[in-house]
Formats: sequence, structure tokens, C-alpha cells
Amino acid sequence: MQFSEITTPALILDRSRLQSNIDHLTDILAPHSLQLRPHLKTCKSLDVANLILDPGTGGITVSTLHEAEYFLSGGYTDILYAVSIVPQKLQQVKNLQEKGAKITLLLDNLKTAQDVSKEGMALDTVFPCLVEIDCDGKRAGLTPDAPELISIARSLHEQAGTHFEGLMSHSGGTYSCDSTEAIQEMAEAERKAVVQAGNRIKSEGLPCSTLSIGSTPAAYFSNNFDGITELRAGVYVFQDMVMEALQVCESSDISISVLATVISHKKDKNRVLIDAGSLALSADPGKKNNLGNTHFGLVCALEDSKPYSNLWITSTNQEHGLISLDHTSLSFEDFPIGSQIRILPNHACITAAAYPGYHVIEEGGEISAYWERCNGW
Amino acid sequence: MQFSEITTPALILDRSRLQSNIDHLTDILAPHSLQLRPHLKTCKSLDVANLILDPGTGGITVSTLHEAEYFLSGGYTDILYAVSIVPQKLQQVKNLQEKGAKITLLLDNLKTAQDVSKEGMALDTVFPCLVEIDCDGKRAGLTPDAPELISIARSLHEQAGTHFEGLMSHSGGTYSCDSTEAIQEMAEAERKAVVQAGNRIKSEGLPCSTLSIGSTPAAYFSNNFDGITELRAGVYVFQDMVMEALQVCESSDISISVLATVISHKKDKNRVLIDAGSLALSADPGKKNNLGNTHFGLVCALEDSKPYSNLWITSTNQEHGLISLDHTSLSFEDFPIGSQIRILPNHACITAAAYPGYHVIEEGGEISAYWERCNGW
Repeated sequence: MQFSEITTPALILDRSRLQSNIDHLTDILAPHSLQLRPHLKTCKSLDVANLILDPGTGGITVSTLHEAEYFLSGGYTDILYAVSIVPQKLQQVKNLQEKGAKITLLLDNLKTAQDVSKEGMALDTVFPCLVEIDCDGKRAGLTPDAPELISIARSLHEQAGTHFEGLMSHSGGTYSCDSTEAIQEMAEAERKAVVQAGNRIKSEGLPCSTLSIGSTPAAYFSNNFDGITELRAGVYVFQDMVMEALQVCESSDISISVLATVISHKKDKNRVLIDAGSLALSADPGKKNNLGNTHFGLVCALEDSKPYSNLWITSTNQEHGLISLDHTSLSFEDFPIGSQIRILPNHACITAAAYPGYHVIEEGGEISAYWERCNGW
Repeated sequence: MQFSEITTPALILDRSRLQSNIDHLTDILAPHSLQLRPHLKTCKSLDVANLILDPGTGGITVSTLHEAEYFLSGGYTDILYAVSIVPQKLQQVKNLQEKGAKITLLLDNLKTAQDVSKEGMALDTVFPCLVEIDCDGKRAGLTPDAPELISIARSLHEQAGTHFEGLMSHSGGTYSCDSTEAIQEMAEAERKAVVQAGNRIKSEGLPCSTLSIGSTPAAYFSNNFDGITELRAGVYVFQDMVMEALQVCESSDISISVLATVISHKKDKNRVLIDAGSLALSADPGKKNNLGNTHFGLVCALEDSKPYSNLWITSTNQEHGLISLDHTSLSFEDFPIGSQIRILPNHACITAAAYPGYHVIEEGGEISAYWERCNGW
């Protein structure tokens, strides 16, 4: 199969870049004793997961119970559902347990902890739980010094329907950092927050076997994982323009791209139009580019996915992408109507979710496979 | 079925608001002689389309050939594919013709016009075409005075593989207007642009039977459709927070909402968290709210979809929505963990695309149906 046979817009996955990204994080973590628990919310693909780890040899992270069910069907049984649980979803969790899964749940308040324990007893099961620690003020969780932390851990430990496993934090704040030093500082702050909270719990005589941290930027720039038992990262398998802006990767590391067709030349505006718009690329404005502008992806050549200098998706409509030729040495002749280009997306997790799967390309440019994704809820 | 039985996040469609929005545009257009050709890229649903018009009684607009195929399967044969065509997609168009469709195509340059004619001859068919007119500089199309316009129209008219039907413009610039007067002016500018371009073509002795304009804001605020034969509008069936910001509608007109569950209370940040994030709501930042802030939707009560004052989705992660209680008189007790809320989205077309279908609710709150959507390409 060739690019020209694919209906555009479509999602392309470069297998060698993917493998290289997977290997790179393995190398980063090799000197350390912590486990990688990959976050599969980005890829939502068993084919990608199987490149990271063999089912049965390690745990995974998911962002929806739909993903949990999907990856369980592929043999992954040790699953962390890393979004705060609510009691209403526990019957679904119990159903997955009955199919052989160990689903570890996340929560951050005493009332929920008690309700999950009660429901565990009512359903004649035990729900393993982590407590979420807030390391950067960006999302959920308890600060490491929160008084409630001990009572939650104790409740989960002592009540029959739950098992307290430890702590989890997410350093999403690294996405807002403006230097690798700032990312490194935030990663260290995350480590300290989780270790400190864990020590508080252990000093109360409670077990706390899991100390889980994560975000791709933190994974790449942290140089200290002391005391941490596992790391979660997701977007590293694909990388994207946000990661490139954070210097986590080069644009040549980005394994995912949107294949699009040139559909119009707007000559009086020096603008090329393509058939990939806000549905195909996502409406995520990402980070500003080198021109200081918001954009919706970096335009690359079809065959080698090499970016054109200063060629950005400057704006989008639902099914239109607009590309300004200003600030480039390119002309309309470089992009004949009907020709194809590829776009490196701002945020791989969001862009990929628009597609049912990936067209996988090999190093020589051959399209060798189609890998499905599990979208939705 | 009740809200509590629905797995969240999910898409809710209020049937009475939907019907009221459909009726309202019918009323607006009733005094005028132009036809409504609804743009079904927003709803992507036969059930919604069937409330607007009976198959066979009028034309529709689509943004993908996938939509064209879907609506054709429901009996809609007169279909305008309102995105610039490329020759590579013509075999697919021919396949739809063979299934009984009249697919009208759009283009804006001579080379494509000639290529489409050639391909029409090669495929032993005739492709009806419109030429896109640029009325606001925002997307594609020729300006009304462009010299190329006449040669394109003549080529489409004279070549055997095509039929020149007329002109089409899209006043997407109305989305950037800051007053209803500005929208009205832009709508009138659009009308004039298309009529002027049509007159140029007719003065050359060429037929030009279709003069098609459109955008929901223009449809609502224009008071002059002289010379225009048809109007396209799409988002009006649902409305959204962008339309509300443009004063096209009130928030109480918005027929679509995202159902979500409260999953955490972040008390030290005065923040409620829900299980609807950037995948469930879209990453589209829309327009700033009354507090001057970017947001990702307005939070409403579950049962009556009545908005809370100043209660916005202040930020999102992939599967987390964060709601600040600042600037409100609300407290955590108003949003118990496990309770449900609804969110009026920024951009209905984009948010809806994350879901395979709609849970339809009746005026009394009963969930009466599930209507599927045709997403993707």
C-alpha cells in the first residue's frame, strides 16, 4: 500500500521512530531500580503496547475503564486506572476483576475511600487503591502534608473491601515549564512530594509499597528517582510538537503524523489549504512556534517526514487546514493540488483520538500494517 | 433510562431545544425565497437530518465524502460536498453517483476544474460543480473580481465531464465579529460578493443557477437575501457557547451537552474535578467568558440544564475537567463526588465528534433514544 491509496486525512505511525522512542526511555530508566508502567492513554493500541512490554510481564496505566477492558483483552492484567474513581464505576471494575484483571484505583478523599471499601464488601471483592498526591497544584490529589492523607490510607488499609497500595502523582505542571532546568526541578519536587507523603504513612505503621510518579518530561529530565517504585509516561512513544517545544525530543523523533491532501491554493493570501482541519488535527493550540504564533502542527514532506522550515498549520476550520507560505522560501509549485503532506501534531494524545487506527510505515516508506485504537468511553 | 445509568462522559441531546432551533431558522427564512440547504457536518446524524427535512424534498451539505455516503444511505440524494475537491476523490464521488446521489462539488482554480472535467469524461459521468467565492479572506475561494472566475466557470460549463452550477461562499469570518451589527455587515458583504460574482458570470452569457451562502451567524442576523438561492447553516441545530458569545442564541437554546461525573474535590484550590476532559469536551478554547477567561464549557445542573452563574470548565487534562468555584456562591456540597453535571460546549461540531452518538432527552428529562453519528473520514 502507498500513501496515495490512503483516504485523507489519516493517521500515520512511523515504526522505527516509535521503536526508537520506546528504546530511549528504556535506556533512560535502565540505571534506576524503578519500574516503567507505561500510560497507554496516548496510543490506545495493543500493537503499540506489545512493543513496550509483553503482557503478563508488567503493569500498565490507563485513563478510562474502556481502555482497561481493551488492554485486558490483550492479556494485560495489572492495570492502574489513573483517574479518580467514583463508587458508581465499581461494578464495572468488579466485572474486569472477574475477567482476571487487577485494577488499581485512584482516589484522594476519605469519603470516597470509605464508599469504595463499602462497595468492595457489598460486591464481595477487594479494590486495590492508590491515593493521589498533588505535586504541582495542577490537577487533583492531596498535598504531601495533608492531615487527611493518613486517615485515608488507614481506612483503605483497615476496611475489608479495599487494599491500600501506596501513592501516585502526576507532574502535569512540567508541560508549562520554560526550560529543562525547570522541568528537572519540578520532577525533583514531585519525587520529594511522593517520598515525603510515603514516609508519613510508613511512620504511622501502615504499608505503602507503591510510590508512582510520572509525566514524559519528568521521565526525560529527572536524574533522581530515589525512593520511587514506578514511573508512568505515555506520550513519549509518539512525541509531539509540545514535547519538541519542551526540548523533550526533536521533531525528527515524532513518530506520529497526519496525512493530508492539498486541496486549494489561495494565492492572494499566500496560503495553501489541506483537507485536515480541527477534527483531523485537534483544536489544541499547543505551544507557540519559533515565529511566536499559535499553530496546529508543523508541515513535513510526505516521504521522509522532514519538516519544512517555518511551515505551520496557521489556522483550521472543521475540515480545512490553512498553511501560510509567509516566512518560507516555498511556493505553490511545491504543493500541487492533489499532492500529499504530513503534519506533526501539537498534542499526540488528542490528535490520535480522532482516528480509529494507525497506518504503520516502515523505514523505506512502505505502509505495512493497520493498527486499531480503542477510542471513547 | 436515567442519567445515572449512562457511562460518563456522554453526549446528551435535548429534543425540544433541538426542534425549537430547527423551527427558529425555518421561521427566519420563511419570508425569503431562498432554500435552506442544512450543513450536516455538525450533527452527522440521520435522526437529526430527518427533523430538518424529509429525504427527497431538499438538498443537504456535507463536509466529508463519508458523510455523503452516510446521508445517501438515509435517502438524501441532493448533496453538496462543500470542501474543495481533488481529482483523487472523484472515483469515490462516481461510486456515490452510481448509488443515486447528485453530489455537487466545490473548487476554486482552473487547473482543478480542467482535471475534474477530464476525470468526469474518463469515468463517463458529469460532475456538477460550484466555484467557491471568498467573501471574508478567511479560508478558500476566489474574490468576486478575480479574472480566473470567468475562465473556470466557462471551462466547467463547456467541458463534457463537468456542469457549472454556480457559486458558493462561507462567511466564517462572522465567528470573529464582536457585535451583531458587524455580523450583519459581514453577511451583507457575503451576499454582495456572491451576487456580484454571479452577475459577472451571467454577463458572459454563462448560466449560474446556484448562489449559495452561509454560516449560522449570517443566517440569523442578515436581513437581505436578495439574489441568493440557498443558505447553508449547521451549528444552529445545537448552538453552543461560541454562538452564545456572538448573541446568536441564549445558553438556554443550546440543545447539546456533555454529561459528566464529579470525581474529586480539590479543596485547597477550591476546585471540583469531573471525568470529562479535553477528549470529552474538545480542546477548542472558544471565546472568552464574562470573567475574561478562556474556558472549555459552561457548567449546568443535571436535570434542567440550567447554567450555574460563573461556573466554567477552567482547564482540562485528557480525561479531567477542572472547575473553579471562585467567583461563585457554590460550595463542594453542591457537587458531591459521584454526582452528575452537564456542560454546554464551546464548539458543538468539534465536541460532538468525540462521541459515537447522542442520548436523546425529552422535556420531562426522560432519556428516550440513542441516535448514532457518522464520524471520521
